[in-house]
Amino acid sequence: MNIGFIGLGQMGAGMAACLLKAGHSVTVFNRTAGKADGLKEKGAKVVASSAEACRGEAVVTMLANDEAIEEIVFGKNGMLVSLPPKALHVSSSTISVSMSERLTAAHAISNQRFVAAPVFGRPEAAAAGQLFVIAGGEKSAIDAGLPIFEAIGQKTFRIADTPRTANLVKLSGNFLIAAVIESLGEAIALVAKGGVEPKQYVEILTSTIFNAPVYKTYGGLIAGGKFTPAGFAAPLGQKDIRLTLEAADRLGVPLPIANVLRDRFISLLAHGGQELDWSAIGQLAAKDAALIVNEAASALSIRT
Amino acid sequence: MNIGFIGLGQMGAGMAACLLKAGHSVTVFNRTAGKADGLKEKGAKVVASSAEACRGEAVVTMLANDEAIEEIVFGKNGMLVSLPPKALHVSSSTISVSMSERLTAAHAISNQRFVAAPVFGRPEAAAAGQLFVIAGGEKSAIDAGLPIFEAIGQKTFRIADTPRTANLVKLSGNFLIAAVIESLGEAIALVAKGGVEPKQYVEILTSTIFNAPVYKTYGGLIAGGKFTPAGFAAPLGQKDIRLTLEAADRLGVPLPIANVLRDRFISLLAHGGQELDWSAIGQLAAKDAALIVNEAASALSIRT
Amino acid sequence: MNIGFIGLGQMGAGMAACLLKAGHSVTVFNRTAGKADGLKEKGAKVVASSAEACRGEAVVTMLANDEAIEEIVFGKNGMLVSLPPKALHVSSSTISVSMSERLTAAHAISNQRFVAAPVFGRPEAAAAGQLFVIAGGEKSAIDAGLPIFEAIGQKTFRIADTPRTANLVKLSGNFLIAAVIESLGEAIALVAKGGVEPKQYVEILTSTIFNAPVYKTYGGLIAGGKFTPAGFAAPLGQKDIRLTLEAADRLGVPLPIANVLRDRFISLLAHGGQELDWSAIGQLAAKDAALIVNEAASALSIRT
Amino acid sequence: MNIGFIGLGQMGAGMAACLLKAGHSVTVFNRTAGKADGLKEKGAKVVASSAEACRGEAVVTMLANDEAIEEIVFGKNGMLVSLPPKALHVSSSTISVSMSERLTAAHAISNQRFVAAPVFGRPEAAAAGQLFVIAGGEKSAIDAGLPIFEAIGQKTFRIADTPRTANLVKLSGNFLIAAVIESLGEAIALVAKGGVEPKQYVEILTSTIFNAPVYKTYGGLIAGGKFTPAGFAAPLGQKDIRLTLEAADRLGVPLPIANVLRDRFISLLAHGGQELDWSAIGQLAAKDAALIVNEAASALSIRT
Repeated sequence: MNIGFIGLGQMGAGMAACLLKAGHSVTVFNRTAGKADGLKEKGAKVVASSAEACRGEAVVTMLANDEAIEEIVFGKNGMLVSLPPKALHVSSSTISVSMSERLTAAHAISNQRFVAAPVFGRPEAAAAGQLFVIAGGEKSAIDAGLPIFEAIGQKTFRIADTPRTANLVKLSGNFLIAAVIESLGEAIALVAKGGVEPKQYVEILTSTIFNAPVYKTYGGLIAGGKFTPAGFAAPLGQKDIRLTLEAADRLGVPLPIANVLRDRFISLLAHGGQELDWSAIGQLAAKDAALIVNEAASALSIRT
Repeated sequence: MNIGFIGLGQMGAGMAACLLKAGHSVTVFNRTAGKADGLKEKGAKVVASSAEACRGEAVVTMLANDEAIEEIVFGKNGMLVSLPPKALHVSSSTISVSMSERLTAAHAISNQRFVAAPVFGRPEAAAAGQLFVIAGGEKSAIDAGLPIFEAIGQKTFRIADTPRTANLVKLSGNFLIAAVIESLGEAIALVAKGGVEPKQYVEILTSTIFNAPVYKTYGGLIAGGKFTPAGFAAPLGQKDIRLTLEAADRLGVPLPIANVLRDRFISLLAHGGQELDWSAIGQLAAKDAALIVNEAASALSIRT
Repeated sequence: MNIGFIGLGQMGAGMAACLLKAGHSVTVFNRTAGKADGLKEKGAKVVASSAEACRGEAVVTMLANDEAIEEIVFGKNGMLVSLPPKALHVSSSTISVSMSERLTAAHAISNQRFVAAPVFGRPEAAAAGQLFVIAGGEKSAIDAGLPIFEAIGQKTFRIADTPRTANLVKLSGNFLIAAVIESLGEAIALVAKGGVEPKQYVEILTSTIFNAPVYKTYGGLIAGGKFTPAGFAAPLGQKDIRLTLEAADRLGVPLPIANVLRDRFISLLAHGGQELDWSAIGQLAAKDAALIVNEAASALSIRT
Repeated sequence: MNIGFIGLGQMGAGMAACLLKAGHSVTVFNRTAGKADGLKEKGAKVVASSAEACRGEAVVTMLANDEAIEEIVFGKNGMLVSLPPKALHVSSSTISVSMSERLTAAHAISNQRFVAAPVFGRPEAAAAGQLFVIAGGEKSAIDAGLPIFEAIGQKTFRIADTPRTANLVKLSGNFLIAAVIESLGEAIALVAKGGVEPKQYVEILTSTIFNAPVYKTYGGLIAGGKFTPAGFAAPLGQKDIRLTLEAADRLGVPLPIANVLRDRFISLLAHGGQELDWSAIGQLAAKDAALIVNEAASALSIRT
């Protein structure tokens, strides 16, 4: 397939590389030009405007937020005018449910096809083509996107005929991961103040009832107190909880744990956590408990 | 070893059977006599009072709560007077940190040894000798209990010299499981109101980022809306969250998610959920959202 | 002064009448025409479009939400084009901080003056000219609006040079009232389940430490279980908490009680409370407690 | 009447002085002897043991917590053995509902009468005999206590035949005050970060919709950032929220705002707030928001 790819961050660069590896012809665009260099070596065509990336059968977007996709799609020379009729827009970004609805309506009016296909997986999974794809959209549109999904992911779930449903599921997944981070942060603060070494505690948890990657990854980060460089930056985590709460507000679903997470992200960022991994909210329970850990005795670098 | 065993509930019966299988001589007592029948067939000596179960080298208690262990240990003809000097009390019950402190002090005065050895695992793991044992106590006391731990569990963690620390870790583990239940309940309510079938949603989660038994077990229970018979009854879950919060209060650790869980259990029991599995709190988010699911269309049997 | 008035709801109608009583020439507009009848009798000039209400020295808007003011100001033939240069727009609506910023910028570009002047007080206070006015804007603009503020209110507070600050203070006030409602709801549920008659309880509170109108009004509504007709409808209360949380998100302030309120409004509206007074969230604590009150024994009409 | 008085803290000393002023014969006891000096001058008989204060027709206790009253009543030479048959124990302390039940049962067995009569009011009201008395107990017992209540208070409410109900109402009142403190703290943090001077904000609130002493007192303390000396110390506030939550747990009432308060007190005390007034929890929202206020520009002395 002749595929455009817009958004070459940590996730996007890996996904675009997988498309190349699968034999597709890939035209890439990123606002910051340097990010495309590695892909050029792998055979990608690098273009200077997003419009030039919209001339194939399909274009994939992997952007940071609603504002970025708004500019790319609805802006001057945006996708609505530059993408050919019947061509497919695959939006893999984690965007709001309402933006997904706007995209669905706008592409329909422009006689273009649209699939929301957010993914589960960290940058390493993206690089390895091992993502999980949650696809929402009309059957024929998802069918058209299958070669793309197969190149970037290990499994594709057809969740609904409506693209927005895929975005909702993606947001709910990030909410669940953030809930793991916060609950681990609370539990670690509790046992650490009771005298247990955080790393040993995480080792016990993850070798028994919580033998799962998400607990190992985030338990390790919190117990180790190491939140840079960010695998997934705190402002992105905050955005996802905000979008989850917005969707919940519209659907009429109270989410008490999401509220706790909302406050944690606000507090983290108010204290200057913009560059930290989102798992840094997992240290705030200890901070509220005035837990001062001796670095010689423990690696939990939490200070009040 | 010559071992007494007090408390033959779902967990205790399996643990006592494992001790027999490992070749130990086991004397069992349960307040409700009939529960010992199966063990008698397997070679256990059944006695009519807890004091008679305290005449060997060690006695294991697996009781429902602080009140039960208070009676067995501090009551008339209790363990403090009936257990021989230097003999070992292994408390595997999920009890409060403060009760663990009382037991530690009282056994020391009575010249008896004490290990808190709560376990992670559901009844099936207990029956199979596959529990995880969290052992707290003096090194020599834990050493003395090793033949017991090896018979009932697949792995033993020496967490601290103080028994109470083991109880704290056990409580924190149950808190983390309850946090999984609640967060799953919120996420399921959100996507279900957005049109996603709960069972399909749980299938997606547990085959991707939450590929862990705890998510499969509880996700399945919530999506299936099946909370009887209880594997772990709601009042026991409430008790554990209460004890977690008590320990957090004493240690000075705010736990916002535990507060959410506290309210959920209160509400569940106020509405008559005494016989339900503790995962039934996972349906309350949907109830707050006035989610009425048509059973023909979905298995989520939540009604307002 | 020659003053236009747009928005003749319960509050606006009373405010416009006060302007007439103070001797001003008042031109009124309301989307639903019938609402202006009473004011016509009092001397108001009734016009058929909002643009016609914008031809005097000043125009006051008292509208339900951001969407309404967006249409009136930014819509076709909106205030930006119809209000004369140097004329004053007084926005008394409870709108978002970000909408207030947009209005400030747009009026400046259009060479018009803008004051945000939200008010504290219920419809009776509006009818009596006894509101409290929180005025934000440039000194000269507030000065120009003083004859208006003096007609509608008993006191005017100059809060800041920036209009948005007045809107923030107004939102915070409504948040505080909602916090009173929720905390009263929790306290009433607690003592009612403990055997105290709700009305007697409110009587005790409001004749002792909570001898304030806000406690009397809302305590009476909750204890009486009477939430219709709505003095201030639940969807408006929900909107104000939503706007408070949005402002808090932007400013970086975690607000745990506002989160509780957010969930209460979502749940109330999910259960069909659109027509109820916002104080109906004060019955949800009792509902969560499965409190079934016998109407013969008590007036608290809460049912699970 | 011949009345004993046990517990001469800030509240008790004022109450005992009022009894003297009303012409009663008063025998006082306090664990710390010096506290009785002022009362001796006013005519009180000072004794060296609590038992000696139990020899009249009635004895009033005004103690800090459950532990203190447990010792005075159930301890060696305690009130159960030292108070004459038919004599009256008036407990004005803020104690737990369960302790009130224990006292009710124990005094009945000892053929003594018991009234729980907690009070609303700060130390100044106690000194002036202007407290509000919430009386629970059998009609004849409350009748017997009326001369006492009339001397110390401006009004007496007969709340129930069961003493514990009076304690529940008292706890709920302190919960409501703490909710005022927390909600004010959140609102002040919000508007202060938005540029409003805290003292001006409190002035606006308390001269408009929150024209009530409780808002003036606590708003002033929070805006002024002055939490010493403590009028009501933070550990006492924490105790009352703890007892409220215990009562709510037993009665089956979820209290989300009380949970927020619980965490606030834990965090305040973990950070060394033992000597502060309980209104110091009202600065924690600002702290979570990383609000650093320049003392030259504002009196809100909150630092992160």
